[in-house]
Amino acid sequence: MPIPSWSELAPQLVDVAMGRRMADSVIRKGKWVNVHTGEIIPDMDVAISGGRIAYVGADASHAIGDDTKVIEANGRYMVPGLCDAHMHVESGMITVSEFARAVIPHGTTSMFIDPHEIANVLGLKGVKVMHDDAANMPINIQVQVPSCVPSAPGLENAGAEITVDDVKEALTWPQICGLGEMMNFPGVAMGDAKMLGEIAATQDAGKTVGGHFPTPELDLMFHGYVAGGPADDHEGTRKEDAIARARQGMRPMMRLGSAWYDVAEQVKAITEDGLDPRSFILCTDDSHSGTIVNDGHMNRVVRHAIAQGLKPITAIQMATLNTAQHFGMDRDIGSITPGRRADIILTSDLPSLPIELVMAQGEVLAEDQKLLVDIPEASYPDFCRNTVNMGKKLAADDFDIFAPSGANQVRARVIGVIENQAPTKALERTLPVERGLVQMDGEGDVCQIALVERHRGTGGVVNGFVSGFGYNKPCAVASTVAHDSHHMIVVGTSKEDMAAAANHLGKVGGGITVFSEGKELATVELAIAGLMSEERAEIVAEKATKMVEAMAACGCTLNNANMQHSLLGLVVIPEIRISDVGLVDVTKFETVDLFL
Amino acid sequence: MPIPSWSELAPQLVDVAMGRRMADSVIRKGKWVNVHTGEIIPDMDVAISGGRIAYVGADASHAIGDDTKVIEANGRYMVPGLCDAHMHVESGMITVSEFARAVIPHGTTSMFIDPHEIANVLGLKGVKVMHDDAANMPINIQVQVPSCVPSAPGLENAGAEITVDDVKEALTWPQICGLGEMMNFPGVAMGDAKMLGEIAATQDAGKTVGGHFPTPELDLMFHGYVAGGPADDHEGTRKEDAIARARQGMRPMMRLGSAWYDVAEQVKAITEDGLDPRSFILCTDDSHSGTIVNDGHMNRVVRHAIAQGLKPITAIQMATLNTAQHFGMDRDIGSITPGRRADIILTSDLPSLPIELVMAQGEVLAEDQKLLVDIPEASYPDFCRNTVNMGKKLAADDFDIFAPSGANQVRARVIGVIENQAPTKALERTLPVERGLVQMDGEGDVCQIALVERHRGTGGVVNGFVSGFGYNKPCAVASTVAHDSHHMIVVGTSKEDMAAAANHLGKVGGGITVFSEGKELATVELAIAGLMSEERAEIVAEKATKMVEAMAACGCTLNNANMQHSLLGLVVIPEIRISDVGLVDVTKFETVDLFL
Repeated sequence: MPIPSWSELAPQLVDVAMGRRMADSVIRKGKWVNVHTGEIIPDMDVAISGGRIAYVGADASHAIGDDTKVIEANGRYMVPGLCDAHMHVESGMITVSEFARAVIPHGTTSMFIDPHEIANVLGLKGVKVMHDDAANMPINIQVQVPSCVPSAPGLENAGAEITVDDVKEALTWPQICGLGEMMNFPGVAMGDAKMLGEIAATQDAGKTVGGHFPTPELDLMFHGYVAGGPADDHEGTRKEDAIARARQGMRPMMRLGSAWYDVAEQVKAITEDGLDPRSFILCTDDSHSGTIVNDGHMNRVVRHAIAQGLKPITAIQMATLNTAQHFGMDRDIGSITPGRRADIILTSDLPSLPIELVMAQGEVLAEDQKLLVDIPEASYPDFCRNTVNMGKKLAADDFDIFAPSGANQVRARVIGVIENQAPTKALERTLPVERGLVQMDGEGDVCQIALVERHRGTGGVVNGFVSGFGYNKPCAVASTVAHDSHHMIVVGTSKEDMAAAANHLGKVGGGITVFSEGKELATVELAIAGLMSEERAEIVAEKATKMVEAMAACGCTLNNANMQHSLLGLVVIPEIRISDVGLVDVTKFETVDLFL
Repeated sequence: MPIPSWSELAPQLVDVAMGRRMADSVIRKGKWVNVHTGEIIPDMDVAISGGRIAYVGADASHAIGDDTKVIEANGRYMVPGLCDAHMHVESGMITVSEFARAVIPHGTTSMFIDPHEIANVLGLKGVKVMHDDAANMPINIQVQVPSCVPSAPGLENAGAEITVDDVKEALTWPQICGLGEMMNFPGVAMGDAKMLGEIAATQDAGKTVGGHFPTPELDLMFHGYVAGGPADDHEGTRKEDAIARARQGMRPMMRLGSAWYDVAEQVKAITEDGLDPRSFILCTDDSHSGTIVNDGHMNRVVRHAIAQGLKPITAIQMATLNTAQHFGMDRDIGSITPGRRADIILTSDLPSLPIELVMAQGEVLAEDQKLLVDIPEASYPDFCRNTVNMGKKLAADDFDIFAPSGANQVRARVIGVIENQAPTKALERTLPVERGLVQMDGEGDVCQIALVERHRGTGGVVNGFVSGFGYNKPCAVASTVAHDSHHMIVVGTSKEDMAAAANHLGKVGGGITVFSEGKELATVELAIAGLMSEERAEIVAEKATKMVEAMAACGCTLNNANMQHSLLGLVVIPEIRISDVGLVDVTKFETVDLFL
């Protein structure tokens, strides 16, 4: 629900500032956290009209009329609403509306979202659905057009493709702020025309190109990538990563997500090396429902950044003004100053940052962690549902792995999951053969993995082996959250359970499910594109907890079992992955045979 | 001569960064003055291609080929080219080309010019002429559309008017960066539709609205002005002015012009009060030819700012990155980083800032204060010439001031010039009458002033009295530089000389001239719109010096006699001025009678 622009509202704002018109609301006697000057200025009033700030000064009495809502700050800090500079709503397994509902009480008033996951399932029309959901929110949600769909052309077939023309079209939509993380860094450095074409379209539209440079090497490939145009990067993890990016005129985005902890190290560029913090930005990248329900969102990140030794005002700048400037929106958001949207948090302490009141676009949306307004229900169109199109009902024998003729054992490639890491290990194992079929090795923790094609109903099933989950009973886990192409990945010790789990997801339209001995132990239904639930964040978080417990009950010992599962098809991170075209060696970017 | 955009050049820049293509030039082993991080990093190389920076790193050997020009920095500082964030080329009385020629050796590679003066003479087509001259330069010259033409509607008739539609049209031109200083601050605060319309058009085009709030009061009028949308202000003079503007989200532009000294006081907001310097910007506003020929340009300002106690890197940020960010151009200029224009200065010392090499858009334009390239001659169209249209040849009796019938003396209003200040004093004097004509009072330093209409050939002459110049012999000084409407202002003790001076300017097409006893003592011919010479800055500076000497020879004792003269028609600064509609009381914004 966009409010009028500053230019549209200016006559009214001027009238309020001058006292010729009364404000809609006035916040009285707060400490003005001024992100422009770095000051904290006591005893200030803020007058608001039409959703924007009309006046900030020592006394707004002249703008208080009978109908003006007066909010007493009583000496609390007035902080600009917090901005999440880069994030994927789909990681919360909830809709944009529901994500907003969950994070507003935490003080988030702007999010820059990259709907990369839905784009892999539904293409541009999926992006548009989330864009329209975003546009309908009472906070500012800007959308980046996903840049790399599919992520690894030739090594996978996603549900859709984003072309340069798609990017150009999306750049004309009102909530589009730029291009989503440009993950194909070798493509940029090698001068790939499509990647550079998407970047050029974004630059020419005056918008911001998101970056993603995940390797620790800062060699020529890094310099080639920078010259290509990405304007930020959230993949740095070390102090030297942040320094290298900032020096090159890219803004380092330091993330604290549910599973990302990249602030503490990188912030040392400021606390230890004394760099100018103006180009540093905070973001979450990926937050699970459980995190936003129980722990917080950008308030958690800012609090953490302060705990690492940043001055509170500096940490707040990194989640407000710096972000706004990065997206060319600092005349619209990012500070409590005239003309900007009235996005204001009240808090009684900066380091601990309790979020006591949240105003966005002039409306008080939450107080003391309680939402005070109705967030419109998302109503996603039908084409977002029933996206799990397997082409047939699967049976246990769809997961049969035939040995080379006459073999009584085989040497097979096995995907090795590494605890707490995204990369996998390319293992080799000797596996027995019975009645012509290669067998799993329960003792050796080798079970089966299958990628079930689910976008085009080809009936395709790619089978392989995986090790590291620790499953020790007959079971299967299936998920349609399977980065980045989001087919269905099924891992199991029992082919019957694998079939049952896969079929169950086909029936409910996607999600994550755990089966054991024919019984459904837990399911998170994700009806929207097989990625997002339409239920409340609290319910999704609870279901996700039960699902993880069910995986543990089957013997799984990993810390982030569900995430590890969902990344097994991510054919851009070494060493070995599975896709709809086969087993992929991600050190060489080529498919390989299952058997050696 | 715009170089290709980053998006157009990206494939080539990536190739150079990766070593697949050789750079056009490489600067080797310089100290990288990094305005993003605030660091100075030794032993760095910069590779340049197509006018933009492709690589900055420890070793650019991989991009050096047989045809690559190698520039040895030998440990000198590599500083981003300096930006003048707000200035009027006309103040130098030279063309844009000539201004560029004069300031390039001083390290200026970007200027944001407001052709407010020519707009008052020729309207939008005059702005376009300067825009096109700007576009033709080897440095980056951006143009602001003048906002207030005429400056005081109803109190003067300028040579042209700029309308909201004119602003909209200009915003489509390639070099337009925003709206020129919004001087009509009461208009903004009172909600004037034209002023807010121009601001809205500029904001809607995503460009920057220049401000101008010259009064020291920081009361509701200030807040109303801020709410209206201006994004910067260069009229602050005190520390508290800078602080107030920065807090409100406006960027304080601190100026050091030929006659403005506003850096020293305002910079104390940082050196004394510790404000974050990120929103502070340096500019010149007005530089005379003599200043840029003899003293410098932005290098003089940066040097001065450092001398006031700023860290060198902070002062440099205020003339590079801060300015670039303000105009939304920080992905194009303002730092030595990939993708940006290769605008680089080499200097062996930061505080004294000797400008030893100037590169703009990849081309070495100057070395050791010597220009190395041909700057294309400006060729201004004919309509810019012969703009002094008085409608008739003037005679001494055109300056007769008739007394009220029968009076033998009168009580008259007299414009009182105040030494070293722009405001005037509304004086009252008793003057004798002879043969029905009011007489000047040489003893009391009251001589005549006349505003000669020169835009429409009406033959109009408005006569009045002025005091403060000290002319003590028969003489007259005439000038077509007469802010803001730029009619002709003639001040003299002899009506014969007044007529001769005025007629001489009519003949040469405008300028400034000094006559005494029928003899021309000195003239600065300003053939372009009566404001600018087509001659070299050095020659104009020399003529201007002779003109000031001639004024002194006539008895004038003022420090800035010529500037004082040129401001006597500025009907927006109190207390009393002259315009083509009469004598104007600028405390009440109304015309008043000459006699009390």
